[in-house]
Amino acid sequence: MIGRLNHVAIAVPDLEAAAKTYRDTLGAHVSQPQPLPDHGVTVVFIELPNTKVELLEPLGEGSPIAKFLESNPAGGMHHICYEVDDIIAARNALAAGGARVLGDGEPKTGAHGKPVLFLHPKDFCGALVELEEV
Amino acid sequence: MIGRLNHVAIAVPDLEAAAKTYRDTLGAHVSQPQPLPDHGVTVVFIELPNTKVELLEPLGEGSPIAKFLESNPAGGMHHICYEVDDIIAARNALAAGGARVLGDGEPKTGAHGKPVLFLHPKDFCGALVELEEV
Repeated sequence: MIGRLNHVAIAVPDLEAAAKTYRDTLGAHVSQPQPLPDHGVTVVFIELPNTKVELLEPLGEGSPIAKFLESNPAGGMHHICYEVDDIIAARNALAAGGARVLGDGEPKTGAHGKPVLFLHPKDFCGALVELEEV
Repeated sequence: MIGRLNHVAIAVPDLEAAAKTYRDTLGAHVSQPQPLPDHGVTVVFIELPNTKVELLEPLGEGSPIAKFLESNPAGGMHHICYEVDDIIAARNALAAGGARVLGDGEPKTGAHGKPVLFLHPKDFCGALVELEEV
């Protein structure tokens, strides 16, 4: 079912400082910050040769990463995103197997303009899993 | 400095159950468990088309992931590994910039038989970073 690792997301309290760390200390290619108000985050993409890392900073009230940063004030690895060919087929197979899909179970449009779903960490080794249809 | 994302590691309390989740629920290619007594872990590799995920279970006394699992009993994302061409040059540049290298600062032989170092999470957005020379 799952294909490529699309990205690993790291939630950070200070996006500018985090982007500087990746650009200047680790020498990676770092995008300009992109505010995504519909998702409650501002994103910087770290472009690696085989995949990407997303740095996420809360944007606005009720950001979905606000609670995570309360528990992890220095930041931390927030979720891992795997690609799937058909997100509805994937969701149906996962739900039939007892895995919990977050929210109302309907795909949303993700940061890359593609349909995404999130799966409950407790069903996936304690890691929040995003599926993205590509 | 950093190149490909070599792997994301997920620490788990029950490797057999975690491997089953990735194999049967997520439909991924999952290796046989490999005990690595020198590293205090047993590892299962999830082979994705562009990178891999490592599932880690504690092995023996004093496993380096034991404390993490005490804090995260369901498991969780433990570290992220980036490839570098020259680990000594990378270490020296990072140390000169004030980043903290864990342990005695000398590379160890990692799970793939290559030299590795770990960097302090507080200096890297709250994420434990492994560097692997490839």
